[in-house]
Amino acid sequence: MAPPLLTTGAHGVSMVAMRTTQFSKGQGTGNDFVILLDRPGMLNLTPAHVKWLCDRRFGVGGDGLLRATRASNIPEWDGRPDMWFMDFRNADGSIAEMCGNGLRVFAEFLREEGLITGNEVDIATRVGVKHVLVHGDGTITADLGRAAVSDEPVTVTLDGRSWQATPVDVGNPHAVVLLGADDDLDELPVQTQPSWEPRSAFPDGVNIEFVEMIEPGHVRMRVHERGVGETLSCGTGTVAVAAAMTAATGHHGPWTVDVPGGRIVVEESDDGFRLIGPAVIQIHGEVICPDLG
Amino acid sequence: MAPPLLTTGAHGVSMVAMRTTQFSKGQGTGNDFVILLDRPGMLNLTPAHVKWLCDRRFGVGGDGLLRATRASNIPEWDGRPDMWFMDFRNADGSIAEMCGNGLRVFAEFLREEGLITGNEVDIATRVGVKHVLVHGDGTITADLGRAAVSDEPVTVTLDGRSWQATPVDVGNPHAVVLLGADDDLDELPVQTQPSWEPRSAFPDGVNIEFVEMIEPGHVRMRVHERGVGETLSCGTGTVAVAAAMTAATGHHGPWTVDVPGGRIVVEESDDGFRLIGPAVIQIHGEVICPDLG
Repeated sequence: MAPPLLTTGAHGVSMVAMRTTQFSKGQGTGNDFVILLDRPGMLNLTPAHVKWLCDRRFGVGGDGLLRATRASNIPEWDGRPDMWFMDFRNADGSIAEMCGNGLRVFAEFLREEGLITGNEVDIATRVGVKHVLVHGDGTITADLGRAAVSDEPVTVTLDGRSWQATPVDVGNPHAVVLLGADDDLDELPVQTQPSWEPRSAFPDGVNIEFVEMIEPGHVRMRVHERGVGETLSCGTGTVAVAAAMTAATGHHGPWTVDVPGGRIVVEESDDGFRLIGPAVIQIHGEVICPDLG
Repeated sequence: MAPPLLTTGAHGVSMVAMRTTQFSKGQGTGNDFVILLDRPGMLNLTPAHVKWLCDRRFGVGGDGLLRATRASNIPEWDGRPDMWFMDFRNADGSIAEMCGNGLRVFAEFLREEGLITGNEVDIATRVGVKHVLVHGDGTITADLGRAAVSDEPVTVTLDGRSWQATPVDVGNPHAVVLLGADDDLDELPVQTQPSWEPRSAFPDGVNIEFVEMIEPGHVRMRVHERGVGETLSCGTGTVAVAAAMTAATGHHGPWTVDVPGGRIVVEESDDGFRLIGPAVIQIHGEVICPDLG
Protein backbone atom coordinates (compact mmCIF):
# COMPACT_ATOMS: atom_id res chain seq x y z
CA MET A 1 0.00 0.00 0.00
CA ALA A 2 1.34 3.42 -0.90
CA PRO A 3 2.02 5.82 1.95
CA PRO A 4 -0.20 8.87 2.42
CA LEU A 5 0.68 11.97 0.44
CA LEU A 6 3.76 13.84 1.58
CA THR A 7 4.97 11.50 4.27
CA THR A 8 8.47 10.20 3.65
CA GLY A 9 7.72 6.69 4.87
CA ALA A 10 7.53 5.42 8.42
CA HIS A 11 9.69 8.12 9.98
CA GLY A 12 6.97 9.51 12.21
CA VAL A 13 6.92 12.96 10.63
CA SER A 14 4.70 15.54 12.26
CA MET A 15 1.26 16.48 10.98
CA VAL A 16 2.61 19.75 9.65
CA ALA A 17 5.42 18.05 7.78
CA MET A 18 2.98 15.55 6.34
CA ARG A 19 0.92 18.30 4.83
CA THR A 20 3.67 20.53 3.44
CA THR A 21 5.26 19.71 0.11
CA GLN A 22 7.84 21.36 -2.08
CA PHE A 23 6.62 22.31 -5.53
CA SER A 24 7.55 24.33 -8.56
CA LYS A 25 5.32 25.92 -11.15
CA GLY A 26 6.11 26.59 -14.77
CA GLN A 27 4.46 27.53 -18.04
CA GLY A 28 5.06 27.15 -21.74
CA THR A 29 3.26 29.62 -24.02
CA GLY A 30 0.75 30.17 -21.21
CA ASN A 31 -0.03 26.53 -20.53
CA ASP A 32 0.81 26.18 -16.82
CA PHE A 33 1.72 23.25 -14.59
CA VAL A 34 2.30 22.40 -10.95
CA ILE A 35 5.53 20.36 -10.77
CA LEU A 36 6.37 17.86 -8.02
CA LEU A 37 9.81 16.26 -7.75
CA ASP A 38 9.39 12.72 -6.47
CA ARG A 39 12.56 10.87 -7.37
CA PRO A 40 11.91 7.91 -5.04
CA GLY A 41 8.26 7.53 -6.08
CA MET A 42 6.97 7.97 -2.54
CA LEU A 43 4.12 10.38 -3.18
CA ASN A 44 0.67 8.88 -3.07
CA LEU A 45 -0.87 11.40 -5.40
CA THR A 46 -4.63 10.87 -5.33
CA PRO A 47 -6.96 12.52 -7.87
CA ALA A 48 -8.29 14.67 -5.01
CA HIS A 49 -4.78 15.96 -4.25
CA VAL A 50 -4.07 16.70 -7.91
CA LYS A 51 -7.39 18.53 -8.24
CA TRP A 52 -6.67 20.54 -5.09
CA LEU A 53 -3.11 21.44 -6.19
CA CYS A 54 -4.37 22.57 -9.62
CA ASP A 55 -7.17 24.68 -8.11
CA ARG A 56 -6.30 28.30 -8.87
CA ARG A 57 -7.79 29.81 -5.69
CA PHE A 58 -7.55 27.18 -2.97
CA GLY A 59 -4.35 25.46 -4.14
CA VAL A 60 -1.44 26.39 -6.43
CA GLY A 61 -3.22 26.53 -9.80
CA GLY A 62 -2.42 24.94 -13.12
CA ASP A 63 -3.78 23.42 -16.30
CA GLY A 64 -2.23 20.19 -15.12
CA LEU A 65 0.37 18.59 -12.86
CA LEU A 66 3.74 17.08 -13.74
CA ARG A 67 5.31 14.59 -11.32
CA ALA A 68 9.00 13.91 -11.99
CA THR A 69 9.98 10.44 -10.91
CA ARG A 70 12.33 7.66 -11.99
CA ALA A 71 10.81 5.43 -14.68
CA SER A 72 11.66 2.43 -12.49
CA ASN A 73 8.89 3.59 -10.12
CA ILE A 74 6.22 3.17 -12.82
CA PRO A 75 4.95 -0.43 -12.83
CA GLU A 76 3.69 -0.22 -16.42
CA TRP A 77 7.04 1.05 -17.75
CA ASP A 78 9.03 -1.61 -19.62
CA GLY A 79 11.79 0.58 -21.08
CA ARG A 80 15.08 1.77 -19.59
CA PRO A 81 14.56 2.21 -15.84
CA ASP A 82 16.99 5.08 -15.29
CA MET A 83 15.10 7.72 -17.28
CA TRP A 84 12.98 10.50 -15.83
CA PHE A 85 9.29 9.71 -16.21
CA MET A 86 6.82 12.53 -16.85
CA ASP A 87 3.75 11.56 -14.83
CA PHE A 88 1.24 14.03 -16.29
CA ARG A 89 -2.20 14.58 -14.73
CA ASN A 90 -5.10 16.72 -15.86
CA ALA A 91 -6.38 19.46 -13.54
CA ASP A 92 -9.42 17.32 -12.72
CA GLY A 93 -7.12 14.66 -11.26
CA SER A 94 -7.38 12.19 -14.13
CA ILE A 95 -4.32 10.60 -15.75
CA ALA A 96 -3.33 12.04 -19.13
CA GLU A 97 -1.09 10.61 -21.79
CA MET A 98 0.89 13.45 -23.33
CA CYS A 99 1.14 17.21 -23.39
CA GLY A 100 3.53 18.98 -25.75
CA ASN A 101 3.77 22.15 -23.68
CA GLY A 102 4.07 20.09 -20.49
CA LEU A 103 7.01 18.18 -21.99
CA ARG A 104 8.95 21.42 -22.56
CA VAL A 105 8.20 22.68 -19.03
CA PHE A 106 9.19 19.28 -17.61
CA ALA A 107 12.54 19.33 -19.44
CA GLU A 108 13.31 22.90 -18.36
CA PHE A 109 12.55 21.92 -14.77
CA LEU A 110 14.99 19.00 -14.97
CA ARG A 111 17.68 21.33 -16.32
CA GLU A 112 17.14 24.06 -13.72
CA GLU A 113 17.19 21.56 -10.86
CA GLY A 114 20.43 20.01 -12.15
CA LEU A 115 18.68 16.67 -12.66
CA ILE A 116 20.14 16.12 -16.13
CA THR A 117 23.64 16.54 -17.50
CA GLY A 118 24.21 18.01 -20.92
CA ASN A 119 21.44 19.51 -22.99
CA GLU A 120 19.84 16.37 -24.39
CA VAL A 121 17.48 14.14 -22.49
CA ASP A 122 15.21 11.20 -23.25
CA ILE A 123 12.04 11.55 -21.22
CA ALA A 124 9.80 8.57 -20.52
CA THR A 125 6.07 9.26 -20.98
CA ARG A 126 2.90 7.18 -21.18
CA VAL A 127 3.22 7.28 -25.00
CA GLY A 128 6.88 6.28 -25.09
CA VAL A 129 10.27 7.99 -25.02
CA LYS A 130 10.45 11.62 -26.15
CA HIS A 131 13.77 13.13 -27.15
CA VAL A 132 14.24 16.70 -25.92
CA LEU A 133 16.91 19.37 -26.42
CA VAL A 134 17.21 21.92 -23.61
CA HIS A 135 18.99 24.94 -25.02
CA GLY A 136 19.52 26.64 -21.66
CA ASP A 137 18.09 29.97 -22.78
CA GLY A 138 14.51 29.05 -21.96
CA THR A 139 13.94 27.46 -25.35
CA ILE A 140 13.21 23.75 -25.66
CA THR A 141 13.04 21.50 -28.71
CA ALA A 142 10.84 18.45 -28.21
CA ASP A 143 10.15 15.60 -30.63
CA LEU A 144 6.43 14.97 -30.59
CA GLY A 145 6.33 12.19 -33.20
CA ARG A 146 4.18 11.54 -36.21
CA ALA A 147 1.01 13.29 -37.28
CA ALA A 148 -1.47 11.61 -39.63
CA VAL A 149 -3.35 14.01 -41.89
CA SER A 150 -6.68 12.67 -43.16
CA ASP A 151 -7.87 13.34 -46.70
CA GLU A 152 -11.52 13.12 -45.64
CA PRO A 153 -12.47 16.61 -44.51
CA VAL A 154 -15.16 17.27 -41.91
CA THR A 155 -17.43 20.28 -41.55
CA VAL A 156 -16.91 22.43 -38.47
CA THR A 157 -19.58 24.93 -37.41
CA LEU A 158 -19.08 27.76 -34.93
CA ASP A 159 -21.46 30.60 -34.20
CA GLY A 160 -23.54 29.89 -37.33
CA ARG A 161 -20.56 29.76 -39.72
CA SER A 162 -19.22 26.55 -41.27
CA TRP A 163 -15.86 25.56 -42.71
CA GLN A 164 -14.21 22.47 -44.15
CA ALA A 165 -11.67 21.17 -41.62
CA THR A 166 -8.78 18.73 -41.96
CA PRO A 167 -8.66 15.92 -39.37
CA VAL A 168 -5.16 15.30 -37.98
CA ASP A 169 -4.22 12.57 -35.53
CA VAL A 170 -1.26 13.53 -33.29
CA GLY A 171 -1.96 10.78 -30.77
CA ASN A 172 -5.01 12.84 -29.90
CA PRO A 173 -7.63 14.02 -32.42
CA HIS A 174 -7.56 17.45 -34.07
CA ALA A 175 -9.55 19.26 -36.73
CA VAL A 176 -7.79 22.17 -38.45
CA VAL A 177 -9.85 25.01 -39.97
CA LEU A 178 -8.02 27.32 -42.38
CA LEU A 179 -9.96 30.59 -42.25
CA GLY A 180 -10.82 32.55 -45.38
CA ALA A 181 -10.23 36.18 -46.23
CA ASP A 182 -13.67 37.11 -44.88
CA ASP A 183 -13.01 35.62 -41.44
CA ASP A 184 -11.57 37.51 -38.49
CA LEU A 185 -9.62 35.20 -36.17
CA ASP A 186 -9.73 37.69 -33.30
CA GLU A 187 -13.52 37.99 -33.48
CA LEU A 188 -14.36 34.25 -33.42
CA PRO A 189 -16.05 33.05 -30.19
CA VAL A 190 -13.57 30.16 -29.87
CA GLN A 191 -14.52 29.68 -26.21
CA THR A 192 -17.90 28.27 -27.26
CA GLN A 193 -18.18 24.62 -28.29
CA PRO A 194 -17.99 24.13 -32.08
CA SER A 195 -19.94 21.27 -33.69
CA TRP A 196 -18.81 18.99 -36.51
CA GLU A 197 -20.27 16.72 -39.19
CA PRO A 198 -20.21 13.79 -39.46
CA ARG A 199 -20.37 13.30 -35.69
CA SER A 200 -18.91 9.83 -36.15
CA ALA A 201 -15.59 11.36 -37.27
CA PHE A 202 -14.67 12.12 -33.63
CA PRO A 203 -16.69 9.91 -31.31
CA ASP A 204 -14.58 10.99 -28.29
CA GLY A 205 -14.53 14.69 -29.15
CA VAL A 206 -11.88 16.70 -30.91
CA ASN A 207 -9.54 19.67 -30.46
CA ILE A 208 -10.32 22.31 -33.07
CA GLU A 209 -7.77 24.81 -34.39
CA PHE A 210 -8.78 27.97 -36.26
CA VAL A 211 -5.92 29.18 -38.42
CA GLU A 212 -5.13 32.44 -40.20
CA MET A 213 -2.42 32.15 -42.85
CA ILE A 214 0.05 35.04 -42.70
CA GLU A 215 2.37 33.56 -45.33
CA PRO A 216 3.60 30.04 -46.15
CA GLY A 217 5.56 29.03 -43.05
CA HIS A 218 3.77 31.45 -40.69
CA VAL A 219 0.28 31.21 -39.24
CA ARG A 220 -1.74 32.50 -36.29
CA MET A 221 -4.12 30.14 -34.51
CA ARG A 222 -6.64 29.86 -31.70
CA VAL A 223 -7.73 26.53 -30.29
CA HIS A 224 -10.81 25.04 -28.63
CA GLU A 225 -9.53 22.15 -26.53
CA ARG A 226 -11.77 19.16 -26.04
CA GLY A 227 -13.46 19.31 -22.64
CA VAL A 228 -11.73 22.56 -21.68
CA GLY A 229 -12.69 25.41 -24.01
CA GLU A 230 -10.35 28.00 -25.45
CA THR A 231 -6.79 27.81 -24.13
CA LEU A 232 -3.73 30.01 -24.60
CA SER A 233 -1.79 27.24 -26.32
CA CYS A 234 -1.91 23.58 -27.34
CA GLY A 235 1.35 21.84 -28.27
CA THR A 236 -0.15 18.95 -30.24
CA GLY A 237 -2.48 21.50 -31.85
CA THR A 238 0.47 23.43 -33.29
CA VAL A 239 1.80 20.16 -34.76
CA ALA A 240 -1.63 19.38 -36.23
CA VAL A 241 -1.71 22.84 -37.81
CA ALA A 242 1.81 22.50 -39.25
CA ALA A 243 0.99 19.05 -40.66
CA ALA A 244 -2.30 20.23 -42.19
CA MET A 245 -0.70 23.37 -43.65
CA THR A 246 2.17 21.34 -45.09
CA ALA A 247 -0.34 19.02 -46.76
CA ALA A 248 -2.39 21.97 -48.05
CA THR A 249 0.45 24.16 -49.32
CA GLY A 250 3.35 21.82 -50.04
CA HIS A 251 5.55 24.10 -47.89
CA HIS A 252 7.47 21.77 -45.59
CA GLY A 253 8.27 24.36 -42.99
CA PRO A 254 9.47 25.18 -40.52
CA TRP A 255 6.11 26.66 -39.53
CA THR A 256 6.01 29.53 -37.07
CA VAL A 257 2.73 29.19 -35.17
CA ASP A 258 1.58 32.18 -33.13
CA VAL A 259 -0.79 31.13 -30.34
CA PRO A 260 -2.48 33.50 -27.85
CA GLY A 261 0.16 32.57 -25.22
CA GLY A 262 3.25 33.03 -27.38
CA ARG A 263 5.11 31.60 -30.36
CA ILE A 264 6.01 28.03 -31.29
CA VAL A 265 8.04 26.81 -34.26
CA VAL A 266 7.19 23.38 -35.70
CA GLU A 267 9.76 21.54 -37.81
CA GLU A 268 9.67 18.22 -39.61
CA SER A 269 12.04 15.69 -38.07
CA ASP A 270 13.25 12.23 -39.04
CA ASP A 271 10.30 10.61 -37.35
CA GLY A 272 7.58 13.23 -37.50
CA PHE A 273 7.54 16.70 -36.05
CA ARG A 274 9.48 18.59 -33.42
CA LEU A 275 8.30 21.62 -31.55
CA ILE A 276 10.57 24.53 -30.56
CA GLY A 277 9.21 26.90 -27.94
CA PRO A 278 9.69 28.58 -24.59
CA ALA A 279 9.39 27.13 -21.11
CA VAL A 280 9.69 29.08 -17.86
CA ILE A 281 9.82 27.92 -14.26
CA GLN A 282 8.43 30.94 -12.41
CA ILE A 283 7.80 29.66 -8.85
CA HIS A 284 9.59 27.50 -6.32
CA GLY A 285 7.80 27.07 -3.04
CA GLU A 286 6.06 24.97 -0.51
CA VAL A 287 2.34 24.43 -0.33
CA ILE A 288 0.31 23.46 2.70
CA CYS A 289 -2.11 20.79 1.53
CA PRO A 290 -5.23 20.19 3.64
CA ASP A 291 -6.27 16.74 4.80
CA LEU A 292 -8.39 15.54 1.89
CA GLY A 293 -9.45 12.31 3.56
CA MET B 1 13.29 57.90 -6.62
CA ALA B 2 12.21 54.44 -5.58
CA PRO B 3 14.54 51.57 -6.39
CA PRO B 4 13.55 49.01 -9.05
CA LEU B 5 11.36 46.17 -7.93
CA LEU B 6 13.02 43.52 -5.84
CA THR B 7 16.40 45.07 -5.32
CA THR B 8 17.29 45.61 -1.70
CA GLY B 9 18.93 48.95 -2.31
CA ALA B 10 22.37 49.75 -3.62
CA HIS B 11 23.99 46.49 -2.65
CA GLY B 12 24.88 45.45 -6.20
CA VAL B 13 22.70 42.37 -6.24
CA SER B 14 22.87 40.16 -9.29
CA MET B 15 20.28 40.18 -12.07
CA VAL B 16 18.84 36.92 -10.82
CA ALA B 17 18.54 38.22 -7.27
CA MET B 18 16.94 41.40 -8.55
CA ARG B 19 14.23 39.45 -10.24
CA THR B 20 13.46 36.93 -7.49
CA THR B 21 11.14 37.85 -4.66
CA GLN B 22 9.71 36.05 -1.69
CA PHE B 23 5.94 35.84 -1.63
CA SER B 24 3.09 34.09 0.10
CA LYS B 25 -0.37 33.32 -1.18
CA GLY B 26 -3.54 33.02 0.84
CA GLN B 27 -7.30 32.87 0.45
CA GLY B 28 -10.41 33.60 2.44
CA THR B 29 -13.60 31.84 1.31
CA GLY B 30 -12.03 31.44 -2.12
CA ASN B 31 -10.97 35.06 -2.60
CA ASP B 32 -7.20 34.73 -3.18
CA PHE B 33 -4.27 37.09 -2.81
CA VAL B 34 -0.56 37.31 -3.55
CA ILE B 35 1.13 38.64 -0.38
CA LEU B 36 4.44 40.54 -0.32
CA LEU B 37 6.20 41.38 2.93
CA ASP B 38 7.93 44.73 2.55
CA ARG B 39 8.57 46.03 6.04
CA PRO B 40 11.06 48.72 4.95
CA GLY B 41 8.88 49.92 2.06
CA MET B 42 11.61 49.29 -0.51
CA LEU B 43 9.55 47.59 -3.22
CA ASN B 44 8.76 49.73 -6.22
CA LEU B 45 5.57 47.91 -7.08
CA THR B 46 4.42 49.15 -10.48
CA PRO B 47 0.94 48.34 -11.85
CA ALA B 48 2.69 46.13 -14.45
CA HIS B 49 4.35 44.08 -11.70
CA VAL B 50 1.11 43.71 -9.76
CA LYS B 51 -0.72 42.62 -12.90
CA TRP B 52 2.02 40.11 -13.71
CA LEU B 53 2.09 38.69 -10.18
CA CYS B 54 -1.73 38.30 -10.18
CA ASP B 55 -1.72 36.59 -13.60
CA ARG B 56 -2.82 33.01 -12.98
CA ARG B 57 -0.71 31.42 -15.76
CA PHE B 58 2.38 33.56 -16.22
CA GLY B 59 2.75 34.77 -12.61
CA VAL B 60 1.49 33.59 -9.21
CA GLY B 61 -2.24 34.25 -9.57
CA GLY B 62 -4.70 36.07 -7.37
CA ASP B 63 -7.80 38.25 -7.21
CA GLY B 64 -5.53 40.92 -5.79
CA LEU B 65 -2.24 41.66 -4.08
CA LEU B 66 -1.57 42.58 -0.45
CA ARG B 67 1.67 44.36 0.39
CA ALA B 68 2.48 44.39 4.11
CA THR B 69 4.52 47.42 5.09
CA ARG B 70 4.88 49.79 7.99
CA ALA B 71 2.33 52.63 7.94
CA SER B 72 5.22 55.08 8.27
CA ASN B 73 6.19 54.19 4.69
CA ILE B 74 2.86 55.47 3.33
CA PRO B 75 3.12 59.23 2.67
CA GLU B 76 -0.65 59.75 2.85
CA TRP B 77 -0.95 58.03 6.25
CA ASP B 78 -1.45 60.45 9.13
CA GLY B 79 -2.24 57.97 11.90
CA ARG B 80 0.04 55.98 14.21
CA PRO B 81 3.22 55.17 12.24
CA ASP B 82 4.00 51.81 13.89
CA MET B 83 1.00 49.89 12.54
CA TRP B 84 1.03 47.41 9.66
CA PHE B 85 -0.45 48.97 6.55
CA MET B 86 -2.45 46.80 4.15
CA ASP B 87 -1.48 48.08 0.70
CA PHE B 88 -4.19 46.38 -1.36
CA ARG B 89 -4.07 46.31 -5.18
CA ASN B 90 -6.54 44.95 -7.69
CA ALA B 91 -5.41 42.23 -10.11
CA ASP B 92 -5.30 44.80 -12.92
CA GLY B 93 -2.64 46.75 -10.99
CA SER B 94 -4.88 49.58 -9.82
CA ILE B 95 -4.97 50.72 -6.20
CA ALA B 96 -8.00 49.55 -4.21
CA GLU B 97 -9.37 50.87 -0.94
CA MET B 98 -10.64 47.93 1.07
CA CYS B 99 -11.37 44.23 0.82
CA GLY B 100 -13.03 42.35 3.66
CA ASN B 101 -11.65 38.95 2.66
CA GLY B 102 -8.23 40.47 2.01
CA LEU B 103 -8.21 41.95 5.51
CA ARG B 104 -8.68 38.49 7.07
CA VAL B 105 -5.96 36.95 4.88
CA PHE B 106 -3.64 39.86 5.70
CA ALA B 107 -4.14 39.40 9.46
CA GLU B 108 -3.60 35.63 9.26
CA PHE B 109 -0.38 36.26 7.34
CA LEU B 110 0.88 38.66 10.06
CA ARG B 111 0.12 36.03 12.72
CA GLU B 112 1.78 33.14 10.86
CA GLU B 113 4.90 35.18 10.17
CA GLY B 114 5.16 36.23 13.82
CA LEU B 115 4.74 39.88 12.87
CA ILE B 116 2.18 40.59 15.59
CA THR B 117 2.07 39.66 19.24
CA GLY B 118 -1.16 38.56 20.86
CA ASN B 119 -4.32 37.95 18.91
CA GLU B 120 -5.53 41.50 18.41
CA VAL B 121 -4.19 43.90 15.84
CA ASP B 122 -5.11 47.28 14.45
CA ILE B 123 -4.43 47.31 10.72
CA ALA B 124 -3.99 50.54 8.81
CA THR B 125 -5.87 50.67 5.49
CA ARG B 126 -6.76 53.33 2.94
CA VAL B 127 -10.15 53.68 4.67
CA GLY B 128 -8.75 53.96 8.18
CA VAL B 129 -7.84 51.61 11.03
CA LYS B 130 -9.52 48.20 11.14
CA HIS B 131 -9.56 46.19 14.36
CA VAL B 132 -8.98 42.47 13.82
CA LEU B 133 -9.01 39.42 16.10
CA VAL B 134 -6.83 36.52 14.95
CA HIS B 135 -8.08 33.42 16.72
CA GLY B 136 -5.15 31.22 15.71
CA ASP B 137 -7.34 28.41 14.35
CA GLY B 138 -7.66 29.91 10.89
CA THR B 139 -10.65 32.02 11.89
CA ILE B 140 -10.47 35.80 11.83
CA THR B 141 -12.88 38.42 13.15
CA ALA B 142 -12.60 41.75 11.36
CA ASP B 143 -14.50 44.97 12.03
CA LEU B 144 -15.65 46.32 8.69
CA GLY B 145 -17.54 49.37 9.97
CA ARG B 146 -20.94 50.80 9.26
CA ALA B 147 -23.39 49.88 6.54
CA ALA B 148 -26.07 52.32 5.40
CA VAL B 149 -29.29 50.65 4.23
CA SER B 150 -31.35 52.76 1.85
CA ASP B 151 -35.15 52.79 2.03
CA GLU B 152 -35.43 53.59 -1.68
CA PRO B 153 -35.40 50.26 -3.47
CA VAL B 154 -34.10 49.83 -7.00
CA THR B 155 -35.16 47.31 -9.63
CA VAL B 156 -32.56 44.71 -10.61
CA THR B 157 -33.02 42.68 -13.81
CA LEU B 158 -31.12 39.52 -14.67
CA ASP B 159 -31.84 37.14 -17.53
CA GLY B 160 -35.30 38.62 -18.12
CA ARG B 161 -36.41 38.46 -14.48
CA SER B 162 -36.72 41.51 -12.23
CA TRP B 163 -36.68 42.00 -8.47
CA GLN B 164 -36.81 44.86 -5.99
CA ALA B 165 -33.36 45.30 -4.45
CA THR B 166 -32.16 47.15 -1.35
CA PRO B 167 -29.21 49.52 -1.85
CA VAL B 168 -26.59 49.24 0.90
CA ASP B 169 -23.49 51.41 1.20
CA VAL B 170 -20.57 49.59 2.90
CA GLY B 171 -17.97 52.09 1.69
CA ASN B 172 -18.65 50.56 -1.71
CA PRO B 173 -22.12 50.26 -3.29
CA HIS B 174 -24.27 47.14 -3.08
CA ALA B 175 -27.78 46.11 -4.13
CA VAL B 176 -29.27 43.15 -2.26
CA VAL B 177 -31.94 41.00 -3.94
CA LEU B 178 -33.96 38.70 -1.67
CA LEU B 179 -35.16 35.89 -3.93
CA GLY B 180 -38.70 34.55 -3.80
CA ALA B 181 -39.95 31.00 -3.41
CA ASP B 182 -40.11 30.61 -7.21
CA ASP B 183 -36.44 31.50 -7.71
CA ASP B 184 -33.59 28.98 -7.79
CA LEU B 185 -30.34 30.56 -6.57
CA ASP B 186 -28.24 27.79 -8.12
CA GLU B 187 -29.77 28.28 -11.56
CA LEU B 188 -29.32 32.06 -11.85
CA PRO B 189 -26.73 33.16 -14.45
CA VAL B 190 -25.00 35.44 -11.91
CA GLN B 191 -21.88 35.62 -14.12
CA THR B 192 -23.78 37.80 -16.60
CA GLN B 193 -24.11 41.54 -15.96
CA PRO B 194 -27.42 42.46 -14.29
CA SER B 195 -29.03 45.83 -15.05
CA TRP B 196 -30.77 48.18 -12.62
CA GLU B 197 -33.30 51.02 -12.63
CA PRO B 198 -32.97 53.88 -12.07
CA ARG B 199 -29.50 53.89 -13.60
CA SER B 200 -28.71 57.04 -11.60
CA ALA B 201 -28.87 55.06 -8.35
CA PHE B 202 -25.36 53.68 -9.01
CA PRO B 203 -23.51 55.92 -11.45
CA ASP B 204 -20.20 54.06 -10.81
CA GLY B 205 -21.69 50.57 -10.96
CA VAL B 206 -22.77 48.30 -8.12
CA ASN B 207 -22.09 44.90 -6.56
CA ILE B 208 -25.27 42.84 -6.64
CA GLU B 209 -26.06 40.07 -4.14
CA PHE B 210 -28.73 37.43 -4.79
CA VAL B 211 -29.95 35.96 -1.50
CA GLU B 212 -31.92 32.87 -0.56
CA MET B 213 -33.33 32.95 2.98
CA ILE B 214 -32.88 29.64 4.78
CA GLU B 215 -34.18 30.95 8.11
CA PRO B 216 -33.82 34.22 10.02
CA GLY B 217 -30.10 34.42 10.76
CA HIS B 218 -29.03 32.12 7.91
CA VAL B 219 -28.88 32.86 4.18
CA ARG B 220 -27.15 31.64 1.04
CA MET B 221 -25.92 34.18 -1.48
CA ARG B 222 -24.16 34.59 -4.82
CA VAL B 223 -22.63 37.86 -5.91
CA HIS B 224 -21.91 39.69 -9.15
CA GLU B 225 -18.98 41.98 -8.40
CA ARG B 226 -18.72 45.27 -10.23
CA GLY B 227 -16.24 45.02 -13.10
CA VAL B 228 -15.38 41.39 -12.32
CA GLY B 229 -18.40 39.11 -12.69
CA GLU B 230 -19.41 36.33 -10.35
CA THR B 231 -16.91 35.64 -7.58
CA LEU B 232 -16.69 32.95 -4.91
CA SER B 233 -17.03 35.47 -2.10
CA CYS B 234 -17.30 39.18 -1.33
CA GLY B 235 -16.66 40.36 2.23
CA THR B 236 -18.43 43.70 2.03
CA GLY B 237 -21.23 41.89 0.17
CA THR B 238 -21.87 39.62 3.14
CA VAL B 239 -22.10 42.73 5.36
CA ALA B 240 -24.52 44.35 2.89
CA VAL B 241 -26.67 41.22 2.97
CA ALA B 242 -26.67 41.04 6.78
CA ALA B 243 -27.58 44.72 7.02
CA ALA B 244 -30.38 44.42 4.45
CA MET B 245 -31.76 41.24 6.04
CA THR B 246 -31.66 42.84 9.49
CA ALA B 247 -33.63 45.80 8.16
CA ALA B 248 -36.09 43.52 6.38
CA THR B 249 -36.70 40.99 9.16
CA GLY B 250 -35.87 42.79 12.39
CA HIS B 251 -33.58 39.85 13.27
CA HIS B 252 -30.35 41.43 14.48
CA GLY B 253 -28.19 38.40 13.85
CA PRO B 254 -25.63 37.06 13.89
CA TRP B 255 -26.22 36.17 10.23
CA THR B 256 -24.57 33.09 8.81
CA VAL B 257 -23.92 33.83 5.14
CA ASP B 258 -23.03 30.88 2.89
CA VAL B 259 -21.12 32.01 -0.19
CA PRO B 260 -19.88 29.71 -3.00
CA GLY B 261 -16.37 29.77 -1.47
CA GLY B 262 -17.34 28.99 2.12
CA ARG B 263 -19.15 30.39 5.17
CA ILE B 264 -18.97 33.80 6.82
CA VAL B 265 -20.75 34.96 9.97
CA VAL B 266 -21.70 38.65 10.22
CA GLU B 267 -22.38 40.20 13.62
CA GLU B 268 -23.41 43.68 14.67
CA SER B 269 -20.67 45.45 16.59
CA ASP B 270 -20.47 48.71 18.54
CA ASP B 271 -19.65 50.64 15.41
CA GLY B 272 -21.25 48.67 12.63
CA PHE B 273 -20.61 45.11 11.56
CA ARG B 274 -17.88 42.57 12.07
CA LEU B 275 -17.18 39.60 9.88
CA ILE B 276 -16.02 36.20 11.16
CA GLY B 277 -14.57 33.83 8.62
CA PRO B 278 -11.67 31.66 7.56
CA ALA B 279 -8.31 32.67 6.16
CA VAL B 280 -5.61 30.29 4.96
CA ILE B 281 -2.03 30.92 3.84
CA GLN B 282 -1.42 28.02 1.47
CA ILE B 283 1.86 28.91 -0.28
CA HIS B 284 5.25 30.32 0.70
CA GLY B 285 7.69 30.65 -2.13
CA GLU B 286 9.82 32.69 -4.40
CA VAL B 287 8.79 33.92 -7.80
CA ILE B 288 11.06 34.88 -10.69
CA CYS B 289 9.63 38.08 -12.10
CA PRO B 290 10.59 39.01 -15.67
CA ASP B 291 11.95 42.40 -16.60
CA LEU B 292 8.81 44.39 -17.29
CA GLY B 293 10.60 47.50 -18.50
